[in-house]
Amino acid sequence: MNKKRHSAIRKMAQKARTAALRLAQTNVDEKNNALLAMAGAILVNKDLLIKENKKDIQFALKQKYSAALVDRLRLDEKRIVAMAQCLKDTAALRDPVGDILETIERPNGLVIKKVRVPIGVVGIIYESRPNVTSDCIGLCLKSGNAVILKGGKEAAHSNQAIFKICRKALKQTAIPLDAIGFVSSTDRKAVEELLKLDDLVDVIIPRGGEGLIRFVAENSRIPVIKHYKGVCHTYVSDQADLAMAEEVCFNAKVQRPGTCNAMEKMLVHKDIASVFLKDILHRFTEAGVELRGDAKTRKISKRVKPATKEDWTTEYLDLILTVKIVDSLDEAISHINTYGSHHSDAIMTTSDAEIEKFFKSIDSACVYANASTRFTDGYEFGFGAEVGISTDKIHARGPMGLEGLTTYKYIVSGNGQIRI
Amino acid sequence: MNKKRHSAIRKMAQKARTAALRLAQTNVDEKNNALLAMAGAILVNKDLLIKENKKDIQFALKQKYSAALVDRLRLDEKRIVAMAQCLKDTAALRDPVGDILETIERPNGLVIKKVRVPIGVVGIIYESRPNVTSDCIGLCLKSGNAVILKGGKEAAHSNQAIFKICRKALKQTAIPLDAIGFVSSTDRKAVEELLKLDDLVDVIIPRGGEGLIRFVAENSRIPVIKHYKGVCHTYVSDQADLAMAEEVCFNAKVQRPGTCNAMEKMLVHKDIASVFLKDILHRFTEAGVELRGDAKTRKISKRVKPATKEDWTTEYLDLILTVKIVDSLDEAISHINTYGSHHSDAIMTTSDAEIEKFFKSIDSACVYANASTRFTDGYEFGFGAEVGISTDKIHARGPMGLEGLTTYKYIVSGNGQIRI
Repeated sequence: MNKKRHSAIRKMAQKARTAALRLAQTNVDEKNNALLAMAGAILVNKDLLIKENKKDIQFALKQKYSAALVDRLRLDEKRIVAMAQCLKDTAALRDPVGDILETIERPNGLVIKKVRVPIGVVGIIYESRPNVTSDCIGLCLKSGNAVILKGGKEAAHSNQAIFKICRKALKQTAIPLDAIGFVSSTDRKAVEELLKLDDLVDVIIPRGGEGLIRFVAENSRIPVIKHYKGVCHTYVSDQADLAMAEEVCFNAKVQRPGTCNAMEKMLVHKDIASVFLKDILHRFTEAGVELRGDAKTRKISKRVKPATKEDWTTEYLDLILTVKIVDSLDEAISHINTYGSHHSDAIMTTSDAEIEKFFKSIDSACVYANASTRFTDGYEFGFGAEVGISTDKIHARGPMGLEGLTTYKYIVSGNGQIRI
Repeated sequence: MNKKRHSAIRKMAQKARTAALRLAQTNVDEKNNALLAMAGAILVNKDLLIKENKKDIQFALKQKYSAALVDRLRLDEKRIVAMAQCLKDTAALRDPVGDILETIERPNGLVIKKVRVPIGVVGIIYESRPNVTSDCIGLCLKSGNAVILKGGKEAAHSNQAIFKICRKALKQTAIPLDAIGFVSSTDRKAVEELLKLDDLVDVIIPRGGEGLIRFVAENSRIPVIKHYKGVCHTYVSDQADLAMAEEVCFNAKVQRPGTCNAMEKMLVHKDIASVFLKDILHRFTEAGVELRGDAKTRKISKRVKPATKEDWTTEYLDLILTVKIVDSLDEAISHINTYGSHHSDAIMTTSDAEIEKFFKSIDSACVYANASTRFTDGYEFGFGAEVGISTDKIHARGPMGLEGLTTYKYIVSGNGQIRI
């Protein structure tokens, strides 16, 4: 039984591989038509989606999932319209496939072009929100890739329904049905087999909690693009515009604390610490933020609890902030590179020299000067959409849009050149 | 004892990581000075190198290694001069670090720059030729990366001597000594630990036989950039210039058969097969090439032995060629995508439509029209040097030069932008 299910996954990946070769040859209109057909089908099947989603919600309530999680799972009319709109928006994006990245003319007459092409077969393993299903199908197809999806069991019915609607919609289009695959099995064995199919699947993108991502990274023989967590810092220099720094830090922490690009740690230069912290710590407390800090911060404010060693590396995803007072820009840089997660880190300063040093020294995907770390996001960067955010150094770093789902090949034109 | 050695590897990687952060801030003159200092030191220590190399050669002779392998291991004055020259050539290459790949100005005034930066810490696991040691040190340092080297036991003395000379030469430069590390242990346990250090090492590049590469790929928790083998094809269309096709195919097979970009399979359109094969098969036989082929090819020439199923996927690295007669361009494309290794594949044709279709459909790192596959090489592509050739889809594909050893980060400049 198990054996059978597992070879079914290999078969699905084989079909996806064949479909990917055909998909790489489709033109942008064919791909856009498919995305629009899926968007239409999602709207038409609104009631079915809500009915299937109710099963997941009932299961979630029975399991006593948190109210926040139940809310993330829920599909209502507004959210279904937004899912369809995301497909339409992706259709409207520029197609990066076929872009010529470089042309090299060699002395022997060879002309070498570096051309952007789809990656091939992308595996996406995700948790929670059902709209990820259609968002990822849209991004993968638009960039010319086949995709194999494996959602979490908490959204099993919703994900399956969205997938089936999308696949059926492909029938009227030039896109092969097998370009999208869905692993419905809810146990980890299925994922384990998928992660070993390195002859058929080109890249795995896990989206979800740190546990899921670590499991994927440790068990995959296929390259994985990921971020474990976002432990984002803002450093307020003694040369900062303190009014601006207050607005930016408050926004980075409070505007949406449950996201990976929210500020988790605030570093403050000793010379402006007492002036700067006085107002902002009060404002944080008013907003319900629990404050933790080092001994120096606690001397300035009694409302700050002592920070443990773990606090410096913890992503709270909540209204909690840890504050540290540092002696210098160098200390701030060293702290961020040591305890951070290489996601998004910011400096607040009016000094160009400090900005340049910070930009050069901070080993993170996104490094900011005088702006909120909350902007690390495919939409906010102008990519139109994102399939994820990477803190890896390989292939894609930071928000990953359509370009992150492509690779390149070299096409070499000659007239009989031989190697001598 | 074992425990101690293993934590020594972690310590080395930790030091490399710290060195990498400093290295990312050095300027191009500092990096070039280091490369030139190492080149000078290699020339000065020529006699020591030859003495150490003799130990490896004696070991190789005692182990009765093949004459070809013993030759690859040998260092003489000419080869030592070439090693130093490679460092000088790498110093002369343009430094890609700091290149601005893209500038995005957002409606809210944020300016986002995508800037090329070093990857960080690169692990290189290699076999055989000792010059790889200094070549890779040069490429990694020039691109701003720290490197940890693990050579094969067959060149243990030579590699260690080259490494020590290079490291000592760094003392007079701005480059931290710990930017280059060397794992001298000859057992696989050391490599196994290195491959698990995904918190310290950013990428692993294996260079050597398929066995080594598979071992690395299957045991690494760090992203691996690699190619297993080069099963390169040339398809001779019925619309080919047959005289040109003969010269190109002969070159691709015979000029240096032991390389990964040499032609291993030749596909020939049925309509020109008997005309085309008549001359070239004779010429191949004269050059000592063993010919294997399908039934149709064997009908045309008695000197062709029957090909087994394995022949279609085998990289011979030798004067052996397998020939197949196909009915169409589509059959050729399907054969190459199914049995090839996605390395380098060529079409010989005068038809632009055929070239376009071949370029679009062949899922390989390098796709050629009317030229020898032997050009897949960093030098031949104009990169100045190469650290390897990748058939992966992720990060780098084809010959990997300095740019392949870089990644990017986003630097975002604002004036107080907050997310609303």
